[in-house]
Amino acid sequence: MAPQVSGRAFVPGHVTGVFTVDRRDDPARTGSTGAGVTLTDGVTVTVEPAASTNVLVNGTDLAVEPVTAVLDRLLGQADGRTSTGPDHQVEVRVETDLPLGAGFGVSGGMALGTALAANRALDLAHTENELIRAAHVAEVEAGTGLGDVVAQARGGAPIRLEPGAPPHGQLDGIPETARVEYLSVGELSTPDILETRAETITRAGRRALDRLLERPTLDHLLERSREFAEEVGLLDEAMSERIEAVEDEGGRATMAMLGRTVIGFGSDLTDAGLDPAVCRIHPTGATVQEQG
Amino acid sequence: MAPQVSGRAFVPGHVTGVFTVDRRDDPARTGSTGAGVTLTDGVTVTVEPAASTNVLVNGTDLAVEPVTAVLDRLLGQADGRTSTGPDHQVEVRVETDLPLGAGFGVSGGMALGTALAANRALDLAHTENELIRAAHVAEVEAGTGLGDVVAQARGGAPIRLEPGAPPHGQLDGIPETARVEYLSVGELSTPDILETRAETITRAGRRALDRLLERPTLDHLLERSREFAEEVGLLDEAMSERIEAVEDEGGRATMAMLGRTVIGFGSDLTDAGLDPAVCRIHPTGATVQEQG
Repeated sequence: MAPQVSGRAFVPGHVTGVFTVDRRDDPARTGSTGAGVTLTDGVTVTVEPAASTNVLVNGTDLAVEPVTAVLDRLLGQADGRTSTGPDHQVEVRVETDLPLGAGFGVSGGMALGTALAANRALDLAHTENELIRAAHVAEVEAGTGLGDVVAQARGGAPIRLEPGAPPHGQLDGIPETARVEYLSVGELSTPDILETRAETITRAGRRALDRLLERPTLDHLLERSREFAEEVGLLDEAMSERIEAVEDEGGRATMAMLGRTVIGFGSDLTDAGLDPAVCRIHPTGATVQEQG
Repeated sequence: MAPQVSGRAFVPGHVTGVFTVDRRDDPARTGSTGAGVTLTDGVTVTVEPAASTNVLVNGTDLAVEPVTAVLDRLLGQADGRTSTGPDHQVEVRVETDLPLGAGFGVSGGMALGTALAANRALDLAHTENELIRAAHVAEVEAGTGLGDVVAQARGGAPIRLEPGAPPHGQLDGIPETARVEYLSVGELSTPDILETRAETITRAGRRALDRLLERPTLDHLLERSREFAEEVGLLDEAMSERIEAVEDEGGRATMAMLGRTVIGFGSDLTDAGLDPAVCRIHPTGATVQEQG
């Protein structure tokens, strides 16, 4: 348990099927209610002290706003805690097979993974809730997501009952597991949609969540999510065609919010002749990994 | 996601190093604050419909009060939810390598595992929080534990900030992982100690938890736990000898509450010439497992 020179964390991907937009003055209380699933496909983040701070995503230098924001909060004493030095510079390496901007919570995963890994690498001695809160606030302020970080911290099939980071947000979960199939056909811009359709989404999302809670099962989550996607008008032809192909075979699929991604359980996408990526619901939330 | 004829769940073991006794009128609000670690060694529970209800622990027919109590709550409509039939009978099979009554949360693990597995086997459609609450209340009413169930549901190194089941209890965690070594030298009776020493324990436990939160690391958890064990007077000669042997080698160890078990991280017990069992901190909380 001595200070380490590097830290590593794994954060599962997260697909939300149903969501609301809940904005407050305090970014830690801002967030989203709704429900989705976390995935064994996710994001691995390694943090090491370096001469200057840079962020590499799959080997490429990238400016990732939630990642730099979380580093500022944790290393710049923005939260009032004393860190172990005046001016930390770190290298952040992100590895992921998930597509960016396709509804998998990759930006939230990068923010949370960076928080957990930096805490180990620099021996910052924060608790899990403090790190989740730092990543959630960074993601909310960057406008890249509202509910992914808290869901990714919990794992399984998280239900977001109250918006926000700990201790404000409240989570529950669907106690089931499943094989997951998904197929991405392109990106959607999260900030644009959160701006322009927030009211419609939130009204439909609240109704869908209430109905889900009457029977909180994975099967019912897909059913309510499919209806929600229809109601908020985010299904384009490419997605509708594929979802209907699954339904024609007696299966069930929906859209990953927010991305042009079709997702289902078991072998429903394969059975409809699609060629999906395959993973599982992740049993756990984000975890720090042992080094060396 | 169709109804299954059997359900299975794994629940990690849980060792608490520091704890308080917090009793309220409502068993869902009764519990314990404190901190400990969950273990990759744990309890696997399988539930199947049967002609009559019985509980097998490692193949032996046993009356386990928290298990029968949780079945009564979930299958006897005690919580006001409609289940799928009037009179469910189930066989519960528990498999565990952990010793009973030695401070590993085996009774809490059996209660929570039974709740999660019964929910799948009988398609009860409860949420995770509802199942955690049912198991917590069963354990509190049986007098076999106060804080294990909520910690086992979270996984990692849980810090219990507020006592009780969801939505009352509040948890945090230490974002670290480690190899764990432990050595059991015998049982302690949880109900007896909770009755006779509650006040001393709670006073020392609150102080230890406050100090731990000033620097929430695994290393500091061991240090505070060791001091707590000394203060509450539960260390007997067999345990003290072994803990001191570890300390003589520059290592750190403490006592599992409540059992005659010595526990440490890394190879500290081995380095002191002891012959411990070895596992790791469990990354996740209790999980439902896929069948077949």
